[in-house]
Amino acid sequence: MGQLSAVDLDRNDPLAAFRERFVVADPALVYLDGNSLGRLPKETLQRMDETIRGQWGDRLVRGWSENWRALPRRVGSKIARVIGAREDEVVACDSTSVNLFKLATGALRCQGKPKVVTDAGNFPSDLYLIQGLGATVETVPEDDEDAAVAALDSETALLILSHVAFRSGFRYDMERLTTEAHRVGAMVLWDLSHSAGAVPMRVSDWGVDLAVGCTYKYLNGGPGSVAYLFVRQDLQTRLESPIWGWFGHRDAFAFSPRYQPAEGIDRFLAGTPPILSLAAVEPGVDILLEAGMGRIRAKSVAQTEFLIERADRQLASRGFSLATPREASRRGSHVSLKHPEAWRISQALISEFGVIPDFRSPDILRLGVAPLYNTFRELEQAVDAIVRVVDEERYTRHDPARYDVT
Amino acid sequence: MGQLSAVDLDRNDPLAAFRERFVVADPALVYLDGNSLGRLPKETLQRMDETIRGQWGDRLVRGWSENWRALPRRVGSKIARVIGAREDEVVACDSTSVNLFKLATGALRCQGKPKVVTDAGNFPSDLYLIQGLGATVETVPEDDEDAAVAALDSETALLILSHVAFRSGFRYDMERLTTEAHRVGAMVLWDLSHSAGAVPMRVSDWGVDLAVGCTYKYLNGGPGSVAYLFVRQDLQTRLESPIWGWFGHRDAFAFSPRYQPAEGIDRFLAGTPPILSLAAVEPGVDILLEAGMGRIRAKSVAQTEFLIERADRQLASRGFSLATPREASRRGSHVSLKHPEAWRISQALISEFGVIPDFRSPDILRLGVAPLYNTFRELEQAVDAIVRVVDEERYTRHDPARYDVT
Repeated sequence: MGQLSAVDLDRNDPLAAFRERFVVADPALVYLDGNSLGRLPKETLQRMDETIRGQWGDRLVRGWSENWRALPRRVGSKIARVIGAREDEVVACDSTSVNLFKLATGALRCQGKPKVVTDAGNFPSDLYLIQGLGATVETVPEDDEDAAVAALDSETALLILSHVAFRSGFRYDMERLTTEAHRVGAMVLWDLSHSAGAVPMRVSDWGVDLAVGCTYKYLNGGPGSVAYLFVRQDLQTRLESPIWGWFGHRDAFAFSPRYQPAEGIDRFLAGTPPILSLAAVEPGVDILLEAGMGRIRAKSVAQTEFLIERADRQLASRGFSLATPREASRRGSHVSLKHPEAWRISQALISEFGVIPDFRSPDILRLGVAPLYNTFRELEQAVDAIVRVVDEERYTRHDPARYDVT
Repeated sequence: MGQLSAVDLDRNDPLAAFRERFVVADPALVYLDGNSLGRLPKETLQRMDETIRGQWGDRLVRGWSENWRALPRRVGSKIARVIGAREDEVVACDSTSVNLFKLATGALRCQGKPKVVTDAGNFPSDLYLIQGLGATVETVPEDDEDAAVAALDSETALLILSHVAFRSGFRYDMERLTTEAHRVGAMVLWDLSHSAGAVPMRVSDWGVDLAVGCTYKYLNGGPGSVAYLFVRQDLQTRLESPIWGWFGHRDAFAFSPRYQPAEGIDRFLAGTPPILSLAAVEPGVDILLEAGMGRIRAKSVAQTEFLIERADRQLASRGFSLATPREASRRGSHVSLKHPEAWRISQALISEFGVIPDFRSPDILRLGVAPLYNTFRELEQAVDAIVRVVDEERYTRHDPARYDVT
C-alpha cells in the first residue's frame, strides 16, 4: 500500500462517492475533526426543513402522534445496527452524560456492590459522572488492558470504559473485557462515542451489559445531537432508571398518577425528547448503514495506516511521536501525535493552512479520520502542512494560551 | 368588554401584529393548543438555516467557540427576563424532567430532611420524578392552596408544585406559597411550564428557591425544545447537581481529571447541549420580550374572560362545566371545560372543524390561549364549533378509544 499514491488510493476507494452526500462548503478545507463533530449530511438539510416547516410549522401538535413519538425508538433501532445490538436494545435520548448517569446508577442499585473500575484515559465527563455516583472508584492507568482486568474483583459492581480512548485512540478488546468483568460478577458499561460508526462491533453477541454513546462524531448527527443508550435485553427488567420521567412510563399519555416503568428499553427515557436534535440524527445513521461498517472499517484502517506511515516518514524526525497503537485492532479511527508544541501547531494548521485537526491537552495533535468523507489526499495535505508549520516555525506566531473545544 | 364583538376586540388588540411573526400554514386552522406546542416563529426558520447550514455545515467544529458554547447562558438570561429572575440565575439545558431531578435531588441532599410536598394536580412527569427521589412524599389535593400550606411542616425539605396546573389552569399564589415554605425551612421548586410566557412573575423578588420549565409551550421553542432551570443566586454554591457532567465543570475544556463544579448556575449543566433544539428557543423568547409580559398578560386575561363568558352563555346548557378559576389572578392562560364526552368532542373539533383543542383525561377539553397569535375571532369560532359538535351529535361518529399527546 505504501507504493500507491494518495491520488491512486482515492481513485480506488469504493466509498469515494459518499463524500458527495455531505455538505462541503469549502472544498479546500481539510477537516480532520469528524471525530469531534461530523460533517452535515445533505439529506439532513431536507429532513430538518421537513421537520421544522412541515411538521412543527404545519402539523403543529399533531406532529407528536404522526412523527415524533416514534423517533427515539426508530433512531435507536438504526443505531443498534451500527453497534451490533438488537433493535429493541437501543433508544436515542438525552446526552451521553445523562445516559451514563442513568445506567450506572441503575446498575449500582441492582448490583449492591460498591466498586466501580475505570481508567484514567476515559473521557473527562465520564470520569466526573463516575466520581459523582457515590461509589468506590478504582482508576487504572490508561491504555493498559491488563491493568483494567487486574482491577476487577468480587467487590466490583461495574466496569466503565471508553471503547476507544479520546486522547490516544487506543481501543480495548470489548469482548475480552466484558468476559473478564462477568467472571467476577461485574457489569460492564461501554462509552462508544469514539468507536460507534468507525469500528464494527457486536455488543449483543459479546454479552455487553450496558453502553452509551454520542451521535455527533462518526454518526454525523449535528452539534450536541441526541445520544443513545444500550441495555442488553435480559437486563431491561432488572435495571431501573433513577430519573422517573414520563417518557419512561409504561403509558406516558395516560397521565396516570403513579409511575410504572415501561417493560422494555423505553424505561430508560426521561423527559420530552428534543425533536430537532433527534430528527437530525437519522440521516447520518442511514448513510452509515448504507456504506456498511465493513467497508467503513477497511477504509479507516487503510487511512490511519497511511497517516501513521507518513508520520513515521515525515514527522518522527520533527519531534512527533505516535500516541496511537500501531496494531489496527488496537485503535479506533483517529491518529494522535505527541509534540510539545501541539497546541500552537494546531492553531497554525487551522489559520494558515485550512487544516482542522484537534488538540488534546497537554501535547496531543489529534487527526480524526472519517472514512465517509475524508480522502487520502487530505491526509497527505495535512501531513505536508504539519511539516511546513514545523520547518518554517510558523507555530511560534501563535498564542500559547490554550482554548479548545469538544 | 362583553359588548364588543370578537372582530372589534381583534381590531383593538395592540398585539395583533405579532401573529404575523409566526408561520400560519393554514389560516383557517383554529389552533388552541399553543399551551402544548407553540407555533413556529418565522424568525426561527432563518435561525435554523443559519445554525444548520451556516454553522454546522460551514464552520463545523469551530461553531462551538464561535456560537454554541454561549447558548445555554444566553438563552437562559433571556428566559430569566421572562420569569423575573436575574440573568445569572437561569440556564437552558436538558429536559424539564431531568432538570427537576437535578434540582430536587440537590435540594434534598442540601436540606437533610425527608419530606416532599406536592399536589395531585402536578404534571405526571413531575409526580413520577418525585416518586423516584426516595423521599417521603405527601400529595395534597389539586387546586387547593390552603391544603398545600397545611401540609408544610418542619420535616418538609421541599415543596414542588406546578405554578399553573396543566389540567385545570388553576394558578397558585407563588409569592404566598414560597413564603409559607420558607416559614418551615422548606425550599420551593416551581414548575413554570404552564405559566412562563403567559403570566408575569418575579421569581427573584419573591424569594423563589428553584424552578424549572419547558420552552415548547408559550415560549414557542419547538417540539421538545431544551428546557431551563432557575436557582436563586445565593443557593448556587450550596446546591450541587447529582449529575456531574463536563458542561457543569468549572473549566470543561481543560479536560482535568477531577470534577470541580462551576461557581454559578453553570454547575447545573450536565452533558453536551443539543444545539439545534437549543438554538430554536431563542427567537421565540425574543418575540415574547419584545411584546412584553404586561401586554401579553392583559390580552390573555381578556381572551380567557371572553372564552369563559362564551362558555357560560353557550356551553353551560350543553353539559359543560368550567374547571378553570373565574378569578383571573387564579388562572394561567388556558380554559378547561369538563364534559363527559370531552374526548370525542375534541376529535370531532379537530377532524370536522379544523379546531385544535386539547383533551386531558378523563373529561377535560382544554382551550389554550396564546396571546401572541390567537385572535378573539378564533375563540368565537371554537365555541361555535363546540356548539355544533354537541347539537348535531357529531362527536358520536368518533372512536371512543383515547389517544392523546403532550
